[in-house]
Amino acid sequence: MAASISPLRSSYRICNSLSFHHYRAKLRMHRKCESQRRHLHASVTRHAAVVVSGTEMARQIHREIQREVEELVTGGNMRPHLGVVLVGDDPASRTYVRNKTRAASILGISSDTVVKPTSVSQDELLELIDKMNRDWKVSGLLVQLPLPGHIKERAVCNAIAPEKDVDGFHIVNIGKLCLGQTSMVPATPAAVWEIIRRTGIETVGKNVLVAGRSKNVGLPIAMLLHTDRNHQRPGGDATVTIAHRCTPREQLKELTRLADIVIAAAGVPGLITVDMVKEGAAVIDVGINRVQDRTTGKLRLVGDVDFEGVKEKAGFITPVPGGVGPITVAMLMKNTVAAARYALTH
Amino acid sequence: MAASISPLRSSYRICNSLSFHHYRAKLRMHRKCESQRRHLHASVTRHAAVVVSGTEMARQIHREIQREVEELVTGGNMRPHLGVVLVGDDPASRTYVRNKTRAASILGISSDTVVKPTSVSQDELLELIDKMNRDWKVSGLLVQLPLPGHIKERAVCNAIAPEKDVDGFHIVNIGKLCLGQTSMVPATPAAVWEIIRRTGIETVGKNVLVAGRSKNVGLPIAMLLHTDRNHQRPGGDATVTIAHRCTPREQLKELTRLADIVIAAAGVPGLITVDMVKEGAAVIDVGINRVQDRTTGKLRLVGDVDFEGVKEKAGFITPVPGGVGPITVAMLMKNTVAAARYALTH
Repeated sequence: MAASISPLRSSYRICNSLSFHHYRAKLRMHRKCESQRRHLHASVTRHAAVVVSGTEMARQIHREIQREVEELVTGGNMRPHLGVVLVGDDPASRTYVRNKTRAASILGISSDTVVKPTSVSQDELLELIDKMNRDWKVSGLLVQLPLPGHIKERAVCNAIAPEKDVDGFHIVNIGKLCLGQTSMVPATPAAVWEIIRRTGIETVGKNVLVAGRSKNVGLPIAMLLHTDRNHQRPGGDATVTIAHRCTPREQLKELTRLADIVIAAAGVPGLITVDMVKEGAAVIDVGINRVQDRTTGKLRLVGDVDFEGVKEKAGFITPVPGGVGPITVAMLMKNTVAAARYALTH
Repeated sequence: MAASISPLRSSYRICNSLSFHHYRAKLRMHRKCESQRRHLHASVTRHAAVVVSGTEMARQIHREIQREVEELVTGGNMRPHLGVVLVGDDPASRTYVRNKTRAASILGISSDTVVKPTSVSQDELLELIDKMNRDWKVSGLLVQLPLPGHIKERAVCNAIAPEKDVDGFHIVNIGKLCLGQTSMVPATPAAVWEIIRRTGIETVGKNVLVAGRSKNVGLPIAMLLHTDRNHQRPGGDATVTIAHRCTPREQLKELTRLADIVIAAAGVPGLITVDMVKEGAAVIDVGINRVQDRTTGKLRLVGDVDFEGVKEKAGFITPVPGGVGPITVAMLMKNTVAAARYALTH
């Protein structure tokens, strides 16, 4: 089924979260158009993908969180507080922590960061977490990963009180996520879910391919999307395929071509190319890869999707940067507010 | 690609767990044959599927468990003991419990069943579980499901000590299973894994479709098969699709036709038909459905797979009854012995 080329092919539009009905209508039109094309076997014009702006969507979520925080405080409740533990002096970890506490501050969430040297023992760290678990002034608590090699990350993740675990990495939160129970959902999967919901992408009975099976990203995305929409924590009711580095290239292509939604979370630049995507599919790029630009020689951020190629064929696409990334931090803040709310009633 | 018909098509062979090398060699031959057929576009004879006898395989696992139990006891350790809680007088539940305790007895595992009336309160039940958790004479503990409506099954499952939870339904065991950590694996998914391993069906990089997403069967099977073979609890490293009742029929067919392994765990008689299966695929039938026989009018057990049709095209197939079922009870016993071993070192 060869796609016809029109002058519109190289254009794309920015979709912000304020006008989704508009874009849903456009998508319906686009689908009708597609169907007509199939029937007529004739060339008609088509539009390139709706580019979902994560930056715009994050702004809207920020406004919602700000409103929620102010309502809590005005109601006489404590201001939500995020406790952060940072071990060592890894520059990337420092940047991530700074971004998180800065976002918290903008949204009216107070925070403090406890910095420990790389030499900190696991026992000391567990004691600190225990203290923060019992501190009623701390609504949500996260330990920035990765940790030095002598500390067992799993032991640390499981030491955080599940109801304060804003990263959603505690074993009980993982179990609950898989069972479709209310739990802290890790920020990146929550961001993917939010994009799908706010953009109005249908999931029920749709075919979803998730490339990547990491415990904090790919796997929870697959759990959110395949589970029952009538469960305590509603799922997407989609058919979901989990692909990963053992998936042969040809098999991946065969499966992505059938997918209504492709979620790329493998950490492989250019993994998803235009020939792998079904016409009109939603393509969500969770990859964040630093590659050297061939022209400038400078490092730049790219996703797992060949954006320029795929946007000509997809129905929706998220860019990198400016797609899933900005929403991820917003979802962490949402979890912090949820933890503060939980503390009010328990 | 039409399959050629030969006098051998209606025959099938029983595969027992003692001669898998023989069958693997046959499968290789079969594949070679298949590939030649594709190249030549000529009619050659083919064999129907290897029928994997769960009854035979269970016998072998029983012998292994018996040996392990005797080694434990001879070594001066306590005989593994299974504690069972049965609530109410549901005849099916009674039968299941009787089958389990009978199997335990045959394998040298002692057991006792505490029967409570339907009117038992949740608190009473939780107290009983707490008592059995603390009882060092109980190695493994299970509460037969379903429970009366006034009792929260999830609360009961989470009350059992994870290390005694031979059903593997505790939230921590579910979380660990998803993370690829050593945990109690629920018996039916463990049985499917055992069939795949003992039959020598390859999983790495293979395309698996699991029809059914139940929390005790379909989901854990998908977890076992997609996870990393180098993790603490080795996984299958397969690409895995989770399909379920929201999956449209045509989409299911499209996906099963690509699958190297189809696992039917939907509870829908005749869900998987011959037109949905790839030539040479392994088809594992986890369904147990009671249907009325058209000729005799009597109830009989059938799986989710149209056995007679599919066996002519598949490479491996498990029958119902006599496939996954007998191995399920064996895996529960394996879990009980594992719990007894765990208690020795903790």
